Amino acid sequence: MKQIVLSFIVAVCFTAGAQAADAPSGSPADWRDVDPQNLVLLDTRYGQVAIELAPEFAPLNAARFKALVRAHFYDGKTFYRVIDGFVAQGGIGEGTAATKNHPKDDATNTAWPPLKAEFDRAIGNDVTFTPLGSPDLFAPEVGHVDGFPVGRDAKESRMWIVHCPGTLAFARDDKPDTASTEFYIVIGEAPRRLDRNLSAFGRVIAGLQYIQKLERGDPDVDAGVIQDPKAQDPILRVRMAADLPIAEQPHFQVMRTESAAFAAKKEEKRNITSSFFFRKPPAILDVCLMPVAVKRPGP
Amino acid sequence: MKQIVLSFIVAVCFTAGAQAADAPSGSPADWRDVDPQNLVLLDTRYGQVAIELAPEFAPLNAARFKALVRAHFYDGKTFYRVIDGFVAQGGIGEGTAATKNHPKDDATNTAWPPLKAEFDRAIGNDVTFTPLGSPDLFAPEVGHVDGFPVGRDAKESRMWIVHCPGTLAFARDDKPDTASTEFYIVIGEAPRRLDRNLSAFGRVIAGLQYIQKLERGDPDVDAGVIQDPKAQDPILRVRMAADLPIAEQPHFQVMRTESAAFAAKKEEKRNITSSFFFRKPPAILDVCLMPVAVKRPGP
Repeated sequence: MKQIVLSFIVAVCFTAGAQAADAPSGSPADWRDVDPQNLVLLDTRYGQVAIELAPEFAPLNAARFKALVRAHFYDGKTFYRVIDGFVAQGGIGEGTAATKNHPKDDATNTAWPPLKAEFDRAIGNDVTFTPLGSPDLFAPEVGHVDGFPVGRDAKESRMWIVHCPGTLAFARDDKPDTASTEFYIVIGEAPRRLDRNLSAFGRVIAGLQYIQKLERGDPDVDAGVIQDPKAQDPILRVRMAADLPIAEQPHFQVMRTESAAFAAKKEEKRNITSSFFFRKPPAILDVCLMPVAVKRPGP
Repeated sequence: MKQIVLSFIVAVCFTAGAQAADAPSGSPADWRDVDPQNLVLLDTRYGQVAIELAPEFAPLNAARFKALVRAHFYDGKTFYRVIDGFVAQGGIGEGTAATKNHPKDDATNTAWPPLKAEFDRAIGNDVTFTPLGSPDLFAPEVGHVDGFPVGRDAKESRMWIVHCPGTLAFARDDKPDTASTEFYIVIGEAPRRLDRNLSAFGRVIAGLQYIQKLERGDPDVDAGVIQDPKAQDPILRVRMAADLPIAEQPHFQVMRTESAAFAAKKEEKRNITSSFFFRKPPAILDVCLMPVAVKRPGP
């Protein structure tokens, strides 16, 4: 059974998934506590999803999402448009029978006027951008800020969260300043063409596999909206971690992307030395393929 | 509710997922029938997955997979190592209790000696390579052959199937010529560093969403192997379509990637003209983000 046992090696060396956190490592100083005020806990029937918000990239949009969570707006709504390899979209819905069966939504919606878009922000010293150190097909430069995958254009002096698996953003209408309540989470290959065209304001730090389990729509029918409302997976409950009793607040830590420990992880992945690799891969990193380790210390 | 209805536009223009087939289009000549001799039907508890084999890229490995299917080798085995954002690996297992409970596997395994690796193949006129027409971070050139995403190195005169979501390949040991029975399907961001280091010989053409629903392992524990064998999702049954009665054989068609219809789809995706895009994205395609349409005509 040697073949079987050794096929482990693929795994040990290459848990390359964007969400597959590396084994915790580094010193305590290499880790940042996730602020419970930016930590969203979204319960699906498959398990709990933890999302970190990034108000430093989209303050109005992040604040709106928090307000919606605190108004229990999403509780009992659904993931109604789920396209495999693309996004899972949740909220009120898209004029389906399900929507019509929630007459209160029309009223609620008036409380959530269209938002000003925050597709990108000025480069500033309030955050630390650490370049990835590899080229990118879609942005002049890519790297990380506080674990978020970020694109940057020094000439325009702008930066933005890029669309990787796990990125959270608001859907919108044709016009830029029209997002209101509907959100999506990227579940597939990074749809980087959406960068700077939608307001991204967070990322899933744990439980993306539960979003992957959501019932899918047919992308060829009604733009992927699941036609049978009963088949749409519910959003059971969404809460801000800060609103839980202290003892129940989950404690997450994200590896500091400006740390030497993260730099070492990037180099390890960029310059592969394992003998498993019969042919040495190009010394390239993709910003969406570079996992940022997340750990949850304690019980 | 205008905001809600119009947020459709994101979907209509950008079902960007690698597996999200565009709506069928083009003339009959733009479509190729999938040969039932290369069509694998893999039943999970979530639904049926259709895989097209590519013997032109890895004849020995594709033949081995067919032989394993016809020997009912995989029926009742499991997806025992599933790492979110990376791969779903199936087969005998990795020395867990589940393996020990299948004593016949040891005997069976002797019938499947290690395979010669087919990490790439010579560039040749037996297949038609159509360049993507955009740069790539990992290969000198990328494009498509019969719907498969392919890398090419003209200097070395080699070509290979690249690791995109849905790519099927054999796992192996540390040494190149050691694959035997264990396979994986890519379920996350393209782990392109595996290109030319493992023998890729097929791709999922329908039902990748069911693979996405598989129970995951913890990537930090035992390289992602699901520790509780009962939690491992079963491979219920795998069959070659050609072995079914003609009337039961599903008829799949894949858009010809050498056709003008596919060229038009690439240009549409590369040069986005929709007014939804406040900022025009870079005119770039990623080979793993360019969906190749699949349709299933008939009842």
